[in-house]
Amino acid sequence: MSGRDDVRLRGFADRASVERALAWVDDHAARLSAVEVGVAESAGRIPAAPLTALAEHPPVDRSGEDGYAARSGDTVGASAYSPVLLRIQDTAAPLNPASAALVAAGAALPRGADAILAFEAVQAIGPTLEVIAPVAEGTGVERAGQQIRALAPLAGTVRPLRPHEAGLLASLGVDRVSVVAQPRVRVVVAGAKAVQGAHGAGDAHGPMLRALIERDGGTIEVRGAGAGVRDAIRRALGEPGADLVIATGRTGTGPDDEAAPAVAETGELALHGVALRPGGSSGMGVAGGVPVILLPGDPLACLCAYELFAGRFVRRLGGRDPELPHATREAEVRRKIVSAVGLVEICQVRLVAGRVEPLGVAEFGGLPSAAGADGFVVIPAVLEGYAPGARVTVHTY
Amino acid sequence: MSGRDDVRLRGFADRASVERALAWVDDHAARLSAVEVGVAESAGRIPAAPLTALAEHPPVDRSGEDGYAARSGDTVGASAYSPVLLRIQDTAAPLNPASAALVAAGAALPRGADAILAFEAVQAIGPTLEVIAPVAEGTGVERAGQQIRALAPLAGTVRPLRPHEAGLLASLGVDRVSVVAQPRVRVVVAGAKAVQGAHGAGDAHGPMLRALIERDGGTIEVRGAGAGVRDAIRRALGEPGADLVIATGRTGTGPDDEAAPAVAETGELALHGVALRPGGSSGMGVAGGVPVILLPGDPLACLCAYELFAGRFVRRLGGRDPELPHATREAEVRRKIVSAVGLVEICQVRLVAGRVEPLGVAEFGGLPSAAGADGFVVIPAVLEGYAPGARVTVHTY
Repeated sequence: MSGRDDVRLRGFADRASVERALAWVDDHAARLSAVEVGVAESAGRIPAAPLTALAEHPPVDRSGEDGYAARSGDTVGASAYSPVLLRIQDTAAPLNPASAALVAAGAALPRGADAILAFEAVQAIGPTLEVIAPVAEGTGVERAGQQIRALAPLAGTVRPLRPHEAGLLASLGVDRVSVVAQPRVRVVVAGAKAVQGAHGAGDAHGPMLRALIERDGGTIEVRGAGAGVRDAIRRALGEPGADLVIATGRTGTGPDDEAAPAVAETGELALHGVALRPGGSSGMGVAGGVPVILLPGDPLACLCAYELFAGRFVRRLGGRDPELPHATREAEVRRKIVSAVGLVEICQVRLVAGRVEPLGVAEFGGLPSAAGADGFVVIPAVLEGYAPGARVTVHTY
Repeated sequence: MSGRDDVRLRGFADRASVERALAWVDDHAARLSAVEVGVAESAGRIPAAPLTALAEHPPVDRSGEDGYAARSGDTVGASAYSPVLLRIQDTAAPLNPASAALVAAGAALPRGADAILAFEAVQAIGPTLEVIAPVAEGTGVERAGQQIRALAPLAGTVRPLRPHEAGLLASLGVDRVSVVAQPRVRVVVAGAKAVQGAHGAGDAHGPMLRALIERDGGTIEVRGAGAGVRDAIRRALGEPGADLVIATGRTGTGPDDEAAPAVAETGELALHGVALRPGGSSGMGVAGGVPVILLPGDPLACLCAYELFAGRFVRRLGGRDPELPHATREAEVRRKIVSAVGLVEICQVRLVAGRVEPLGVAEFGGLPSAAGADGFVVIPAVLEGYAPGARVTVHTY
């Protein structure tokens, strides 16, 4: 790190734009390779390649319900006053004329049968079946390939498999599924500064990032830094087994803000300082081939920078949609939202009667403002905020 | 089970309304008791009681950023041409007049200071600080209690803790959180009927229900039934350790549909057969104090009945919102949706240019229709469906 780039006791002379930081993430986060998992564990994972049906389903014409398989032609004219009588025969044999065979839903249709008589419409008396209403050809019959044709697409490679898609694969005989590996994220949490007392902002990072990284499909290994932040970051970058290192805290301009220097000394600090609020002291780099993202120590800034940058990195590694994963909602601004031109701002908001109200102050609302929020609004750097009546996109928690 | 209630080889004479089935669920699924978990595992769990802040946060007036703490009055008139000079003093002592003290973000404000000078606005020359712009009182200062007041509510008891709420609790010094216990669901899967070949509909149930039950906050234990469906269900109901037993398959009107008789013989079969499509052979009961829900063997019917009934039971046990957990979206019907009066129907739909198109046929679309769907529409029993142009609610996958 050249003296010119060290922000300690100087401040951020030149912050990178959010666009540049996002571009760095997109350039450095490549989809991981494939691993095989059992079909029972495949829900929630991203298929490594498109999945197609190997065979049609159902494989044969079959009964769609419990009942008696029959020839529809035999039932013409049947009524309660003039029932048609069919002989009940063995299900395994081809259907004889004027006969019916007991079938269960899902059973192959006996040869010659073309309809299923539901139990409600018949009465079995010994070996004879009384049919009291005619049945149309094809009633209750499910044709081979009706649900799915051979080579039909089952799932793509852009979103996690849904529970019923895992079920479908299993019912088609798939035992193992090739999916994108889970990103392994190593998180180094800088300890609380002594001045903040027994509990500090840093205590929030582990529990919060664990849940966020798991939401984004990754696995997390949390390490405390103790007193030696610089050593802890260097060790985390030097050991194998991580697809991404995240270090939280000690990213600012104070004398003990050693996270950025630690990366600069070990590898390349690509950028430090982003035109984002909260989250402006974020940084990114690569050391020993391992990408590293520095998140601010303030918990709300850590949350915002995770969502925009580190979460995007994790989602890209795991083959997911890199965009913010929250459900969005368009809504009208009720109370003015103020923002500084030149900074992308993340404003925590509440939805009151369907309209958007900002919560707290960008800098000092802290995590409680997010805990009380229904979601957040991302305000582009070119805007001074939003006037009442403006339409905005809320990313809902 | 009286002969009159046995539907085998007879059909469902009298199906319960969906309302009655939902009322049974609501009557029998009571919120489980509380357990304690570590704060790092609390995200995604439902607090057993409302959580409030034990103390205000931050506990003292503190610096909101890295810089120099100063008295705003001392900086009046400062400019680049006529800088104000302050003496840099020790941070631990009260601030002397015409002095400044180095502080890190989060540090307690030295007594006497009322503003923070950012590094960008000053230059330190040896023991002297040159200030080139006046600073307003309160700039960069975070007041005690500004983020949260003592006894302020932190989280309620109706939705899972969010990642940043777990982080907030941790940063406030909370180590353990009392949350609603996870529902323990024991699932008995009836094996594939021999007629269906090596792989059958039943193979879908385990993988699908595992992911659905975990989505709803429960844990799952899957048991195959082998040939003895009746014994397997009775054993599952007789052993301790389950808050709910789900049995899938063998719920219909065929001769080997033994799920409902097994419940009736062991305890009380409250209802069997619901006016729902797909999912009409669902059943519910209680045996030995354990509630049991029977889900149809057809995988799509199993999915629909899980979502409406069993999932609701699991969500209620775990203290979650019992309603369907999918994000909803109002949209206009593009192609007519057909439904039978007297049945609640679940129609798989695709959203095409923001409008709703039905997929497949209710009875025989099978799981592939759900795999290709963007969500589903629940059609009330009183309606024949929806004409093009009607507005419907889509539950999105």
